[in-house]
Amino acid sequence: MEVSNHYVTIKHDINGSPAESDFELRTTTLALAVLGGSKDVIVKNLYVSIDPYQLNRMKSDSSSRIVSNSSTRIVPGQAINAHGVGRVVASDNPEFEIDDFVVGLLGWEEYSVVKGGDTLSKISSTEFPLSLYAGIFGTSGLTAYVGFFNVCKPKKGEKVFVSAASGSVDMLKDQLGFDNAFNYKEEIDLKSTLKRYFPDGIDIYFDNVGGEMLEAAVANMNAFGRVALCGVISEYTDKGRKAAPDMLDVVYKRISINGFLLVDYLHMFGEFMSITSEHLRHKRMHALEDVSQGIESVPSAFVGLFRGLNVGKKLVEVTKI
Amino acid sequence: MEVSNHYVTIKHDINGSPAESDFELRTTTLALAVLGGSKDVIVKNLYVSIDPYQLNRMKSDSSSRIVSNSSTRIVPGQAINAHGVGRVVASDNPEFEIDDFVVGLLGWEEYSVVKGGDTLSKISSTEFPLSLYAGIFGTSGLTAYVGFFNVCKPKKGEKVFVSAASGSVDMLKDQLGFDNAFNYKEEIDLKSTLKRYFPDGIDIYFDNVGGEMLEAAVANMNAFGRVALCGVISEYTDKGRKAAPDMLDVVYKRISINGFLLVDYLHMFGEFMSITSEHLRHKRMHALEDVSQGIESVPSAFVGLFRGLNVGKKLVEVTKI
Repeated sequence: MEVSNHYVTIKHDINGSPAESDFELRTTTLALAVLGGSKDVIVKNLYVSIDPYQLNRMKSDSSSRIVSNSSTRIVPGQAINAHGVGRVVASDNPEFEIDDFVVGLLGWEEYSVVKGGDTLSKISSTEFPLSLYAGIFGTSGLTAYVGFFNVCKPKKGEKVFVSAASGSVDMLKDQLGFDNAFNYKEEIDLKSTLKRYFPDGIDIYFDNVGGEMLEAAVANMNAFGRVALCGVISEYTDKGRKAAPDMLDVVYKRISINGFLLVDYLHMFGEFMSITSEHLRHKRMHALEDVSQGIESVPSAFVGLFRGLNVGKKLVEVTKI
Repeated sequence: MEVSNHYVTIKHDINGSPAESDFELRTTTLALAVLGGSKDVIVKNLYVSIDPYQLNRMKSDSSSRIVSNSSTRIVPGQAINAHGVGRVVASDNPEFEIDDFVVGLLGWEEYSVVKGGDTLSKISSTEFPLSLYAGIFGTSGLTAYVGFFNVCKPKKGEKVFVSAASGSVDMLKDQLGFDNAFNYKEEIDLKSTLKRYFPDGIDIYFDNVGGEMLEAAVANMNAFGRVALCGVISEYTDKGRKAAPDMLDVVYKRISINGFLLVDYLHMFGEFMSITSEHLRHKRMHALEDVSQGIESVPSAFVGLFRGLNVGKKLVEVTKI
């Protein structure tokens, strides 16, 4: 059987802010059949993850940042791999049967051919909605977990600041249990803002933003403060906005700034899943999703990340089950 | 007995590059007598250490950086404490007798009164020249030791870059055994310079400089590279020259930038002394000193640090033994 497979690609390298016009939807024909002995699996995608790091793969200088299959340079015209959830529609792999739900490195496309089934895991439990496996149970959730526990190493009572926590202030406070929150767009001087919200100083900064926010956080950090540098979204679209934290503060306050990547912590997945499931079961944690519909919505969903439009984990529902 | 005690002080806060005219020599009269029960010790200073960090204590905003007795704000007109070596001339402390040689927190002055004898240690061995206790066996040597071993945690075969290693290139290579060295003043583009000297990338950067050099080092770092941020001399004199390392590099290469201060590692002193003594005995390590004569030479010695004039550890010999 043959299907037409719509996929999203870039028209050219993107070195500044992305616009929807930088993307296009293309179509190929795909035979839903796998070669004997290949162990290949074909997946019909249900949810795909929309993440800011993809922009780094679209830049002209992205070749220097290849760390794993998910950080290779994105070639204009070609499909773009991305974390996601789908259903098996063809398999030469004994681990996966047709109609199995799977999670792994799929793509911004309707169907993904996963060579050797390598990056896939089967979703056996039906306890949680499938979309969670593309979000809180996926790379986003695991990145937050290892960044916080393995990189920041929090101690009881420490003051924690998270940038780009996402969503409205009221929601962060009332629904998600943050002690406090602010909208950076409404603030004039971030250093004073942080001083106001952290009168006792910041011990841990989970940084998704870079730029001025990182400078303001370092200025407000306590001695032995730790920064987990997860991403620097403010710098992805504008090379001119580089963070220049006061290094004299870094010395005198013995601050450590630690870049980290999920790829080094994949062994934490089991522990992470079991703890996160428990938190969700007991409603100590809430998974907030922002879902767009249809593969054609990927460009606007992606572009929206850099304008702060998403409220919660951004996903695209490619196909309804 | 009374003596006149010459000491160096600042005329006013210093917020930019220091000039000799920012300093003055003052004189007080000191009775060489200690109060019974005070445990005070009076030391006639022989060598005092001249270090860039002192400039941070002379700034208007220095109050925020008080970490220990040696980082308190320097008040115009008052004496300036500094690490040094001297001889006891009066003591109410049973641990110290007249004519003992001692090392500790003394000052840029001819005589120091050390309350309770608190920061002093007796120099019992006569194996090494006394000046070494104000340099390689002092805070400078211990800082280098803990910064390298405790902060950078080097592994065999890793490539190490040290900025402000000090002195001429030929001397660093021929006398001190560096694999290679360059004079930053003769380089136009530090990123290319480091690429030339580190074709396989940098694993460890011991940073005394900050600014552009830190940016260039991060650009040339390997995955899992570590920066020990010991000081940022290029930023002490010019707030505009702040380092803005590429944080995307920090994330993708999982670089850690770690500010550190000696005060947290004083427990390493015993280990450091025993290892460093052995290296010196077997001439595997050479102590390079740059000594100016007389208390009146402190301002020019200090100002010279920020112009790169010293070759080796900068000391002032206050009095000949």
